[in-house]
Amino acid sequence: MPAAAQIPLAMLVVFASAKLLSEVFERLGQPGIVGEILAGVLIGPHVLGWMAPNEVLSILSDLGVMFLLFGVGLEVKASDLFEVGGMAVAVATAGVALSFLAGVGVSTLWGEPRVEAIFTGAAMVATSVGITAQVLASRRLLNTRPAKVILAAAVVDDVLGLIVLSIVGGLAKGQVNYIDIALTAAIASGFTVFVATVGRRTVERVLPQVQARVTLVEGEFALAMTLLFALALLAVYAGVAAIVGAFLAGMAVGQTVDKRVHELTSGVRELLVPFFLVGIGLRLDLSVFAKPSVLLLAVAIVLTAMISKFVACSLGAYRLGRTNAFRVGVGMIPHGEVGMVVAQIGLSLHVMPQSVYGIIVFMSVATTLLAPPLLKITFRGVMAPDARDEEIVRLG
Amino acid sequence: MPAAAQIPLAMLVVFASAKLLSEVFERLGQPGIVGEILAGVLIGPHVLGWMAPNEVLSILSDLGVMFLLFGVGLEVKASDLFEVGGMAVAVATAGVALSFLAGVGVSTLWGEPRVEAIFTGAAMVATSVGITAQVLASRRLLNTRPAKVILAAAVVDDVLGLIVLSIVGGLAKGQVNYIDIALTAAIASGFTVFVATVGRRTVERVLPQVQARVTLVEGEFALAMTLLFALALLAVYAGVAAIVGAFLAGMAVGQTVDKRVHELTSGVRELLVPFFLVGIGLRLDLSVFAKPSVLLLAVAIVLTAMISKFVACSLGAYRLGRTNAFRVGVGMIPHGEVGMVVAQIGLSLHVMPQSVYGIIVFMSVATTLLAPPLLKITFRGVMAPDARDEEIVRLG
Repeated sequence: MPAAAQIPLAMLVVFASAKLLSEVFERLGQPGIVGEILAGVLIGPHVLGWMAPNEVLSILSDLGVMFLLFGVGLEVKASDLFEVGGMAVAVATAGVALSFLAGVGVSTLWGEPRVEAIFTGAAMVATSVGITAQVLASRRLLNTRPAKVILAAAVVDDVLGLIVLSIVGGLAKGQVNYIDIALTAAIASGFTVFVATVGRRTVERVLPQVQARVTLVEGEFALAMTLLFALALLAVYAGVAAIVGAFLAGMAVGQTVDKRVHELTSGVRELLVPFFLVGIGLRLDLSVFAKPSVLLLAVAIVLTAMISKFVACSLGAYRLGRTNAFRVGVGMIPHGEVGMVVAQIGLSLHVMPQSVYGIIVFMSVATTLLAPPLLKITFRGVMAPDARDEEIVRLG
Repeated sequence: MPAAAQIPLAMLVVFASAKLLSEVFERLGQPGIVGEILAGVLIGPHVLGWMAPNEVLSILSDLGVMFLLFGVGLEVKASDLFEVGGMAVAVATAGVALSFLAGVGVSTLWGEPRVEAIFTGAAMVATSVGITAQVLASRRLLNTRPAKVILAAAVVDDVLGLIVLSIVGGLAKGQVNYIDIALTAAIASGFTVFVATVGRRTVERVLPQVQARVTLVEGEFALAMTLLFALALLAVYAGVAAIVGAFLAGMAVGQTVDKRVHELTSGVRELLVPFFLVGIGLRLDLSVFAKPSVLLLAVAIVLTAMISKFVACSLGAYRLGRTNAFRVGVGMIPHGEVGMVVAQIGLSLHVMPQSVYGIIVFMSVATTLLAPPLLKITFRGVMAPDARDEEIVRLG
């Protein structure tokens, strides 16, 4: 294969298979996003073997999820999130705590020693907001109340995940320094709150003035992109994920920028988000199906992960009423990459067997695949108008 | 630096510096594109040292120039290019022949042995269409007659560059197989002509029918992207550059797709093209300034490269009248990456000294930097309405 073929080949195989399966799934009445993730499974190392995770895909996937969250931020009002802030903290904390306990419980029942059980539990706490955000955005549900709770809780969840990661990282070094952890947590939450309040208000005041002085064509888009990359970078240094920075950047400019910036961002998102989704599918480890005992544990872990998040997060949002609380619970089901990072630390410390590592990866892909159809069912009542909206957009 | 910081950091430094210098240059009445290339020089290894060429930037740069040419293709009618086909062949052939002879001449005068002089000449034949296309597109000049000649000639130039590359590659292996070279040239030209005629007409007939059956949101964009990646890939296998395939894909869908596809593509282009421009600047090798004798040769090579292309290509387009012929000549001045590939082969064969390699790289960046201001001057007469157009776009 000529070296110059690598990029177009990767683009073609990933993008076209994602869109093809998305089309098939939409026609079957299933969420297209599931088709895109399954496209990754299909072309991945365990089925067709056309594509393995590589540098090109990983860069495009990272950018894709960054633009996904930036786009979600664009459509969300900060004040709406602050309104549900208390509930979001309750939802996130309950979800993290119950997932951890349930993970430790199942592993202990399975006969794992204490340290291993703790690592398995820790690997089960993180929520991946990308999937839920994509489903809600594509169904135009971001402005519903449960959607706002989910988004705010996902940001809190990221800070909690960071704390869990610090503790586990401390275990890896042989000692847990609680002062360090408290400091890490304080910086991360401080950054998030500061950017979402003072930072955002400053941007809302300063950006239009800067914009008025810029002579560049598409200067407003350039300013928005600069803010996006700057906040994503600062977020990483503050200890939270780059996508939290991207989300905050979107929220900071969402109320002031021109429609044109939304359109240009959509283009980038349409191109790159499939790489994020296919990237998830590519990681699915089917080796868990090799041994019946491992498979059984995998099923147990997936069920535990789903049920614990659903129950805890629904309870955290009980004040929204049963239907909306259930929606929040389902929205928090997808498990994210932080879990895989924890699992990798456990693997490197030899306190997590390779089989359990495979199960964690399997669980994180499986919960991601199962969430969109469940979201579709729970949001059924508010689905009809959106489907029509999309129809109008497509016909327009 | 945390690993997760790498992507946002590269995005921020490259994108923000490109846009900042673009703004400064536009205010000074210079083309913004020169500012973006100089941003690469400034943050590159020889000046500030903030950024060196790396995997992330190279992927984004490759995608950027692919989308740049796709976007140019979207705005160009194939029939317009065929109209100027004969002239384009004359322009490209004259430019390649004279550049080669001039390069051999200067090197021989400088005392280089025969084989080295041939390599230096070969490294001087290729035209880089990306820069000229970006200047013309941003000034909304793509539909002028000289612009069409330049675009068509650039496609022919790519096929000629391929032939030169095959000959040089043959020299590298110790023997030049003329049957192989003829076959390579036939496949490359055959692919280009076939796609631009039969392929394009098929797409124009079939695509709207497929589109009518697709239920995906933004399905038309997904189809256009799939065609873009597929033709870029096929182009590489046919021996021409991926960007020729991208250009042909744009031309194939340009007349049938909805305005929405143009908008979404603009978003990707706005984001990625700066990475292509900064990437050029990053490669500038300032070590040629270390020794006066090398510097003198560098200046001689740059002048030779510019004058030979300008004279030959203007002569090739003489039937357009003097003003338009000059425009074509200036538009063909930027030298492209194929020259660097030839130079690398020469380097690996030890028939090109490191100093001459540095000069080739320097020449290719220098001609790229000098072309936009020259284009701006030669197109001055048709500049005014565009500047107003941009104003309207910005205000609207």
